[in-house]
Amino acid sequence: MELLLSNIPPLRFSNKNTLSCFDDLFHKAEGLRIASGYISTDALAELKNIIEMNKKSYLELIIGMHGFDGFTKSQYEAAKYLDGFLRENNAGGVKVAKAFRFHGKLYSFLKNDAPFAGIIGSSNLNSIFDSQNTYETDLFLKEKSIVSEIDSFISALSKKASVPLSEAEIRFIEDKNKLLEGHDGVEKIGKAELAEAMSNRSRISFEIPVKSDDTPRSNLNVYFGTGRRNKRGLIKPRPWYEAELIVPKSITKRRGYPRAGYPKRESIITVLTDDGWKFKCKISGQNSKNFRSADDLKILGRWIKGRLENSGFLKVGQPVTGEILRNYGRDNIKLTATQDPSVWILNFGA
Amino acid sequence: MELLLSNIPPLRFSNKNTLSCFDDLFHKAEGLRIASGYISTDALAELKNIIEMNKKSYLELIIGMHGFDGFTKSQYEAAKYLDGFLRENNAGGVKVAKAFRFHGKLYSFLKNDAPFAGIIGSSNLNSIFDSQNTYETDLFLKEKSIVSEIDSFISALSKKASVPLSEAEIRFIEDKNKLLEGHDGVEKIGKAELAEAMSNRSRISFEIPVKSDDTPRSNLNVYFGTGRRNKRGLIKPRPWYEAELIVPKSITKRRGYPRAGYPKRESIITVLTDDGWKFKCKISGQNSKNFRSADDLKILGRWIKGRLENSGFLKVGQPVTGEILRNYGRDNIKLTATQDPSVWILNFGA
Repeated sequence: MELLLSNIPPLRFSNKNTLSCFDDLFHKAEGLRIASGYISTDALAELKNIIEMNKKSYLELIIGMHGFDGFTKSQYEAAKYLDGFLRENNAGGVKVAKAFRFHGKLYSFLKNDAPFAGIIGSSNLNSIFDSQNTYETDLFLKEKSIVSEIDSFISALSKKASVPLSEAEIRFIEDKNKLLEGHDGVEKIGKAELAEAMSNRSRISFEIPVKSDDTPRSNLNVYFGTGRRNKRGLIKPRPWYEAELIVPKSITKRRGYPRAGYPKRESIITVLTDDGWKFKCKISGQNSKNFRSADDLKILGRWIKGRLENSGFLKVGQPVTGEILRNYGRDNIKLTATQDPSVWILNFGA
Repeated sequence: MELLLSNIPPLRFSNKNTLSCFDDLFHKAEGLRIASGYISTDALAELKNIIEMNKKSYLELIIGMHGFDGFTKSQYEAAKYLDGFLRENNAGGVKVAKAFRFHGKLYSFLKNDAPFAGIIGSSNLNSIFDSQNTYETDLFLKEKSIVSEIDSFISALSKKASVPLSEAEIRFIEDKNKLLEGHDGVEKIGKAELAEAMSNRSRISFEIPVKSDDTPRSNLNVYFGTGRRNKRGLIKPRPWYEAELIVPKSITKRRGYPRAGYPKRESIITVLTDDGWKFKCKISGQNSKNFRSADDLKILGRWIKGRLENSGFLKVGQPVTGEILRNYGRDNIKLTATQDPSVWILNFGA
């Protein structure tokens, strides 16, 4: 039994944290049973990849709250994507709690069909894969009797109180305009603030192409790349929403483009978006070619891919293709300078 | 170490559940340290009373998420009410996490200033006092080392990562129209459904007085009553939102009033409210004098007291008085029949 604490200042302890503990146990396990009150698009897409890349043989996932509170379209697409993968491979599936709102967070790790460890606490699946600086408190358990009690409970929850995703009645909730709601490092701005920035626009602007290369290494499709292997040999997939823009030299060399290197090897600018978000971006790399969100690569990716998802043309698990961009109606992002050299406007409105 | 599971069919086990375990430990404890990601108005109001009624000497509460996600006005009033009580009695206080969003749920029970038991898991404070049929999974711990680790962590969270409620910058979130949102047994109805019921009104209607008696036993002010003593001697306070209407005989004897006793000792009607909610009410008692929400006494109370709170005239911890009703602008609730004898309209619009 060990207390698992997030590792966020000013409360860093020598304790294991839930993320590293999950990774270690996942690496050792052949299969998992998970019951999580809440899930996120990201977490489900990553779970699919981490299972596949590390050749795990079994996952049973029960989603506890969304059967009552509703799914966003992209959460549901992600759940279908994971469920489809598991069922095709005869490797488990995704279920939805139906008898009651299930708010618990339980993880059971299996080897030779028997549970050898468990985690109980406050971490929903989104905190495991998409943590965003929220402090969680969990308990890591390896004592045999409690470990099998947790595993049996998840099985009972699955069999007696849940239905397969494909048979669940799904209520959809609106996710438009909630794209970056509550995201660390992102502020929602009012119409007045955006209008003021618009009225301060200078004549300098650039149309950055959104590369729709279907290859795995494309800048919007890193999710389909190979992942990264950690010290112990566990392959960690790249997040569904991770993305950056690679800006051609023909654009970055033009007068007024925000260059990397003043005063450091990178420059940070504040961007205001046409749909009312404000976050920091980082210009870096040779010829200033890399355009990324500053704090978290997923912010820019969520903004771009989330809009494609909201339009209905991109589904979780599909690469961004030229056809999707044509259907969406736009294949570039306009970056416009304002009178304040640190503030820029980004437009990806279709 | 014991797994705590909610006791909701079809998953009833012989396990202790979090509610009864909390009550037992609370009864034995002299003081508590609690860190809860989320809280509710109800839970804080009850916590104040249960501490006071059972003469506990210490409570430190850290609210983990609302410093970032915002408080509703009534949540903040309830936190101030609890904090004020604790500080006046030199018995602890309420703090708000500031260094990061704290999503954990930890309970530490103290005797002679030392922790003797703890609970960790998915139960926020609102699940302990206001459970609403959500299934939770927690772990009850009495092993010395983990119990003191949890207690020390809550202390560190309080000292290093939190600020006193009175020094916290509070962001308020709108709670209008969310009065009964997501509440078990309550449906939100559209304008069309309400308009249809309105067009089906019959000529029968009754103005039920909202009794504003300031005495503790008044029907809107049961919170100020004496509470109930359980088998072990723990005094359990009545919920802040518990309420019923006592309808005078002069009204219930009139033609068309929905009488108790057909076909049973009580009658159940469906009510649609002027502000768009739908729930069931129960008519019972001698001369059909009791008018309550059917599934949960707090539904009707939330609807009445929540509107008084939203108006700004009622604050958590105050009894509903004649003056508050005068300020609100209405001291009766109009019950109107429709062509469907099981459907009625309730109006408390000021």
